[in-house]
Amino acid sequence: MSVVLRRDRRVDARVVEGFSRFGVATVHEAQGRTGLMASFMRPIYAGATVSGSAVTVSVPPADNWMIHVAVEQCRRGDILVVAPTSPCDCGYFGDLLATSLKARGVLALIIEAGVRDVRTLTEMRFPVWSRHVSAQGTVKGTLGEVNLPLVCAGALVNAGDIIVADDDGVCVVRQERAAEVLKACEAREAKEAAVRARLAAGELGLDIYQMREALAAKGLTYRDAED
Amino acid sequence: MSVVLRRDRRVDARVVEGFSRFGVATVHEAQGRTGLMASFMRPIYAGATVSGSAVTVSVPPADNWMIHVAVEQCRRGDILVVAPTSPCDCGYFGDLLATSLKARGVLALIIEAGVRDVRTLTEMRFPVWSRHVSAQGTVKGTLGEVNLPLVCAGALVNAGDIIVADDDGVCVVRQERAAEVLKACEAREAKEAAVRARLAAGELGLDIYQMREALAAKGLTYRDAED
Amino acid sequence: MSVVLRRDRRVDARVVEGFSRFGVATVHEAQGRTGLMASFMRPIYAGATVSGSAVTVSVPPADNWMIHVAVEQCRRGDILVVAPTSPCDCGYFGDLLATSLKARGVLALIIEAGVRDVRTLTEMRFPVWSRHVSAQGTVKGTLGEVNLPLVCAGALVNAGDIIVADDDGVCVVRQERAAEVLKACEAREAKEAAVRARLAAGELGLDIYQMREALAAKGLTYRDAED
Amino acid sequence: MSVVLRRDRRVDARVVEGFSRFGVATVHEAQGRTGLMASFMRPIYAGATVSGSAVTVSVPPADNWMIHVAVEQCRRGDILVVAPTSPCDCGYFGDLLATSLKARGVLALIIEAGVRDVRTLTEMRFPVWSRHVSAQGTVKGTLGEVNLPLVCAGALVNAGDIIVADDDGVCVVRQERAAEVLKACEAREAKEAAVRARLAAGELGLDIYQMREALAAKGLTYRDAED
Amino acid sequence: MSVVLRRDRRVDARVVEGFSRFGVATVHEAQGRTGLMASFMRPIYAGATVSGSAVTVSVPPADNWMIHVAVEQCRRGDILVVAPTSPCDCGYFGDLLATSLKARGVLALIIEAGVRDVRTLTEMRFPVWSRHVSAQGTVKGTLGEVNLPLVCAGALVNAGDIIVADDDGVCVVRQERAAEVLKACEAREAKEAAVRARLAAGELGLDIYQMREALAAKGLTYRDAED
Amino acid sequence: MSVVLRRDRRVDARVVEGFSRFGVATVHEAQGRTGLMASFMRPIYAGATVSGSAVTVSVPPADNWMIHVAVEQCRRGDILVVAPTSPCDCGYFGDLLATSLKARGVLALIIEAGVRDVRTLTEMRFPVWSRHVSAQGTVKGTLGEVNLPLVCAGALVNAGDIIVADDDGVCVVRQERAAEVLKACEAREAKEAAVRARLAAGELGLDIYQMREALAAKGLTYRDAED
Repeated sequence: MSVVLRRDRRVDARVVEGFSRFGVATVHEAQGRTGLMASFMRPIYAGATVSGSAVTVSVPPADNWMIHVAVEQCRRGDILVVAPTSPCDCGYFGDLLATSLKARGVLALIIEAGVRDVRTLTEMRFPVWSRHVSAQGTVKGTLGEVNLPLVCAGALVNAGDIIVADDDGVCVVRQERAAEVLKACEAREAKEAAVRARLAAGELGLDIYQMREALAAKGLTYRDAED
Repeated sequence: MSVVLRRDRRVDARVVEGFSRFGVATVHEAQGRTGLMASFMRPIYAGATVSGSAVTVSVPPADNWMIHVAVEQCRRGDILVVAPTSPCDCGYFGDLLATSLKARGVLALIIEAGVRDVRTLTEMRFPVWSRHVSAQGTVKGTLGEVNLPLVCAGALVNAGDIIVADDDGVCVVRQERAAEVLKACEAREAKEAAVRARLAAGELGLDIYQMREALAAKGLTYRDAED
Repeated sequence: MSVVLRRDRRVDARVVEGFSRFGVATVHEAQGRTGLMASFMRPIYAGATVSGSAVTVSVPPADNWMIHVAVEQCRRGDILVVAPTSPCDCGYFGDLLATSLKARGVLALIIEAGVRDVRTLTEMRFPVWSRHVSAQGTVKGTLGEVNLPLVCAGALVNAGDIIVADDDGVCVVRQERAAEVLKACEAREAKEAAVRARLAAGELGLDIYQMREALAAKGLTYRDAED
Repeated sequence: MSVVLRRDRRVDARVVEGFSRFGVATVHEAQGRTGLMASFMRPIYAGATVSGSAVTVSVPPADNWMIHVAVEQCRRGDILVVAPTSPCDCGYFGDLLATSLKARGVLALIIEAGVRDVRTLTEMRFPVWSRHVSAQGTVKGTLGEVNLPLVCAGALVNAGDIIVADDDGVCVVRQERAAEVLKACEAREAKEAAVRARLAAGELGLDIYQMREALAAKGLTYRDAED
Repeated sequence: MSVVLRRDRRVDARVVEGFSRFGVATVHEAQGRTGLMASFMRPIYAGATVSGSAVTVSVPPADNWMIHVAVEQCRRGDILVVAPTSPCDCGYFGDLLATSLKARGVLALIIEAGVRDVRTLTEMRFPVWSRHVSAQGTVKGTLGEVNLPLVCAGALVNAGDIIVADDDGVCVVRQERAAEVLKACEAREAKEAAVRARLAAGELGLDIYQMREALAAKGLTYRDAED
Repeated sequence: MSVVLRRDRRVDARVVEGFSRFGVATVHEAQGRTGLMASFMRPIYAGATVSGSAVTVSVPPADNWMIHVAVEQCRRGDILVVAPTSPCDCGYFGDLLATSLKARGVLALIIEAGVRDVRTLTEMRFPVWSRHVSAQGTVKGTLGEVNLPLVCAGALVNAGDIIVADDDGVCVVRQERAAEVLKACEAREAKEAAVRARLAAGELGLDIYQMREALAAKGLTYRDAED
């Protein structure tokens, strides 16, 4: 009953790529604070920002067979999302799989487990967000599933959803909402740029956001220190 | 009953800045091994060393309203110290607040919670020591306190205490003891420089510190391996 | 009953150094997936790869006296391996001890506890793999053991075993098996190079490793998505 | 955009209740090892086994307002499933809410956060599976959602899914599959009873499951110890 | 510079004992949600509720010498509060120390470290709230402090403060506020009793607390499920 | 190269059983504070104390095949010790395996992984010390080893070593030292009984152990509080 779903549909590439202009924090806010993976998902090197279309892989603990199966289902612009069925810190993925994914135009790996060969992956500039780094290898003995919905680091991911990742973490955007969320990102970014300029000039958030009255209404009190 | 304490007093700036010449390890030793925050407090980028005067902010979980309030209480040379009233990994702080703090001359943020926009903060060279990195935002609905004593990452911090932070972690120096501790740092550093030269020349700590007799008295025994 | 074992024997230096050409992942695989330390052992800076002969030190919690004792037992090409008898995040080791070890030609420190002065250690290029970073110092009051077998981060280490460490973690090679494992590393690397070239050219692991039949036999099913 | 979904449909009560005869381990196996929550979900007291229909509640960190909203949506035989949108150990739930739920015939609470008044809850025999126990209270200021799909402790839960919980943890059964999974539980239990009798009589699993040949084929070797 | 502060003053015994009628959750709420220790502090057995006057002990990691010193400073009705200067899971305390404390009328131990002999302690009905349970012993070599302020599990504790502990955790009440907080507990409990009766009779919190309007104003929407 | 070592030798049963009269804390102290497993190893129910001869099993993550193999190697009075080659919280062991072990006279299971069916195991009074409780099952696809030395929860265990476990944790006694350590336990217990009586009568440890002089020599100072 182990299934690989073959999927041709992807969200329009310009929309998918559009998200990489924004940080994860912006995307997460723009879509109403949903879809964020747990904060233990960390990049293997700093500075990468990616957005791509999810190919999902559910794997048994300590068994990476299905990642090999999943590679074939990946296309240019995709991001592989891997979740084990129970917690595991094994290194499911190393430079050989990265070479294969890169050859197919895959942009990144998101894995709620371990990754290895991180020095080589860093040199290759193949970004990975993972829960662990470990040289511990895996076996190839038990099946899993490709492109079925899964939960990765606390977030539900469907095949084809947009994954956005940067130094702040990893966020999932439902494919149905992609265009709408992208617009909301642009709007948010524009608004923030204006605020940023005022803050840089020394204005206070208290005034820009007009918080003083609400704070006083809640009972905020100012006192002078006696020391 | 939520209070903001307005404080003018700061420790003499030359004393405060003096600590940044020393690492946290030196300061911690020099003041009798007190005031260190827990080791889960990590810098968002390597290489920064700061010392500044604490402005303290007690915040509810997932609510950063009081940070906006606290900004106004900050001055050139201050460091913002934020502790949630229960554990929280939310990203309380991002590039907008950093822009605002930078405009006021604030040197760094210490937060026993999450921070976001870490790539931008790194580019801005605004250092943060935090327990988490997370894009998860916060709300603005519940009050807290500014410049009252609080516990951050296991250390008691009073407004105006000196905060010293580097790649080893974060240490608090009581403002009353600042001048005395700074002198102790200088003395310690001088002593260590002499030892360092002897160790680099190949002398053993066993001899420099004259440990052999004490070790033998405790019962240390040397044996030759038979393999 | 506290013992320091004096040992002259080391594995042939060319064999020991030979391991540094390979990553930890390769060594771990080549020796049948044994000897890996737990994944919480992380380098203080990225990019270092070392191999050396283990000098083992068992230390009490928060007491680094025996590290001073152990320095004398170290020689050019050694790596110090330190394990506390119960979990401890204290900074047992800083730039003074690193200066001393460097003067003796020691290559690295592996410690299932804390390290401090990490900025200076990074500048000195003295690599450390540790469980924690902490400025918290230690005392010198209780004995331990040098060069007796110990368990460090879940791995058994005997004095003289080969330690290999890189960004993926830390692995122990039994000294008796060193030459044999080194050969297995070379064989493995050669084989991987061939596979890497084919993957880079776009071939699939599914075909290179001839997995399709075994997957089908296990019941893997392909379906076309209907979305 | 905060929504409460009013739902009348429940799986047939005899089916729902049927699961409480089986342990979580049996249910999890019977449905193909899916739907298990993370192992950090622990009961506040030992010995309870429940099965019920899920009412789902997504809550902000440290804010339990929506639990009050959700109570009204609960009926006899339901189980409340609560997940915060970011990790939180606050005590969202205590004896007052339990009194209210009990009055409505609700069987249990599943919460990936904190619970309090656990002594009283134990005396009331109102079972709770939670990630934390904490007296820390919550506020009532931000909305969430009731009866929309959510991820709780790594498992996807839809309103109306069957929740089964015992000392081994918490498992979710999709409502569409409930009858089928219940049958599979019965079949599994019958089979296990037979095996249990043979094992109790001293037969070996190696023989009952006929493993010896497969083990030998994999290369298992027996040797006599020389000590 | 290691100090033992001899203190005679205690809060009036009837006030101190009064707190044991209330749970920690009630006390914590009644004093404005302050003073709670971290949720990792757990009782070694269920069902104990205590309140007493704090004798504080700051101890080095893995060294329990100062607990022996502190025993002499304890009186009938006191509770010993122990915090290590860096994290440690060693068993600082066992049945001998418990026998000694019991002989002096001490009610409980609160320790942000390890405890051992928990079976015997349970049989003696000497309650302990600790972070760890471990048979690992400690040494007696380094001094600490008795009755000076310390931070235990994130909470500031002064000698003489009231400690309240039950299955929900541990809370600290400032001695200056003890009488006032006790009254607030009584008021809170009375109010809750009335609410409890209404909830038990089937009334909803939504109505008792009149939340419906505020929820609607925030934008809460009800929809009927279509399934 | 997967091996099962068949071993007939056991330490004299009276010696092995003798340890169960002492707690883990006593045994650990009596043998010089060695052999303790990490404090995350917890019993599934309180109150059991066991001692037995170790049969060791090294298992792959999420694969319990070798436990079935190991059962055959067990005899009356043995304790099964299971360690995964990388961290895993799966439930490797449940009531069927317990039935089988019980039929052979095996006393307990020690496993640095997960266990399931804990309610049934509790009813059967088959004690287990584990790192996790989880209903998550395992596969049977990869070999491991039986009766070879392994590291379990940080402690080295050889087949035939004595395992002692109680509510404080798990300790390993080398079989060569068993008789000697048992005697040391008896001596220690006798000494403690005398001290216990004096402490119960109100004498202070400070006086019984004659600590006052040493404390003063280290610089301990007494001061009267001014409050």
